[in-house]
Amino acid sequence: MAELSETTGIPVPTIKYYIREGLVSPGRPTGRNQAEYGEEHARRLRLVRALTEYGNLSIAVIRDLMEQIDNPGLQEFMLLGAAQKTVTRRQEARPGPSKEEAQRRLDDLLERRGWKGLTEEPAYRTAVGVLATLDEVGYHDMIDELDGYADAAQRAAETDLRVLGPDVSDRERAVEIVVVGTSMGDTLIASLRRLAQVAIAERMYAGQGGSDAE
Amino acid sequence: MAELSETTGIPVPTIKYYIREGLVSPGRPTGRNQAEYGEEHARRLRLVRALTEYGNLSIAVIRDLMEQIDNPGLQEFMLLGAAQKTVTRRQEARPGPSKEEAQRRLDDLLERRGWKGLTEEPAYRTAVGVLATLDEVGYHDMIDELDGYADAAQRAAETDLRVLGPDVSDRERAVEIVVVGTSMGDTLIASLRRLAQVAIAERMYAGQGGSDAE
Repeated sequence: MAELSETTGIPVPTIKYYIREGLVSPGRPTGRNQAEYGEEHARRLRLVRALTEYGNLSIAVIRDLMEQIDNPGLQEFMLLGAAQKTVTRRQEARPGPSKEEAQRRLDDLLERRGWKGLTEEPAYRTAVGVLATLDEVGYHDMIDELDGYADAAQRAAETDLRVLGPDVSDRERAVEIVVVGTSMGDTLIASLRRLAQVAIAERMYAGQGGSDAE
Repeated sequence: MAELSETTGIPVPTIKYYIREGLVSPGRPTGRNQAEYGEEHARRLRLVRALTEYGNLSIAVIRDLMEQIDNPGLQEFMLLGAAQKTVTRRQEARPGPSKEEAQRRLDDLLERRGWKGLTEEPAYRTAVGVLATLDEVGYHDMIDELDGYADAAQRAAETDLRVLGPDVSDRERAVEIVVVGTSMGDTLIASLRRLAQVAIAERMYAGQGGSDAE
């Protein structure tokens, strides 16, 4: 285990914690207090650390995802379902007129884009919840720009599928890419969005007051 | 307070909690165990609930943001800085070759897009951290598609600034829009990205095995 820690740069107590939580399988015992770890252990350790640090996921969700990656019976068409698990907030909208209006808006959007059969996805419920809340707090301007956010999301998803590639016959690799790419991609897109905001705003509001040091 | 709870649909214990945490100001006392609350209280309550439920933000971050909204001295050119506070993960990359390479990649991207003077932003450090981690776990395909994610982020930021509008002279409103729009927008974009993934993948992998019930 000391060797594994050295290879991956992950402290021994962290490795022990991952094994205890069922995120990484224990090594093959080779004696008292000794076990053998392979390259797949190092790879899995780096993956779990990446998900805990940047994926914004709970241990329970990561355990569930690892089980999906390890499940040889998982079908290709279930592949993207795994990514749905990485929606961090899955809060149901409160029933009421805001929820109904939000659902109507989202259904119209899906219809316009030809995105079919998605109303049972967890992400559908999340999107309805966000739109209903925006309506409740009076942010109608943002709801009116829904197509702009959908354009951004579509651009991101197209990029995701370029990363994944047309061949998904190596299921383990494919599920892993979807899960890591989706969860870490959220953080990447969020940070780039903030940088783009600042860059665009500086051009847009230049000279509207404030000192311009550069 | 019972009336305020009825108007907003937020339970009394939750309102008390928000007041105790300094997220909402206490009402004007009108007697023993009685206080007067105005329309601005109802509005702020809905806003705080929206941020806790969908903004994926801690109470400490929300308190900090409310102080910025309430700060009359905030300058226009500081406006977008408020959004930077809502970067959920602000983990520094570990020093090493992955971090250096990540920084080089991001600097090249910013250069290509003419996004200048952003290296001191918290979001810059987050992006470097994500890219360095992707490098460590061997996801180079995703790093190679960085421009695709930047396109998505730019599209989102352009939409953000359309929502904000060209006139930012009403500072209070502007800061609020930036903060709410950025944090809730992350959740909205993430959920739409997952829906787009499923929709696009279904076309892309149709007939690659698995039963096609529809």
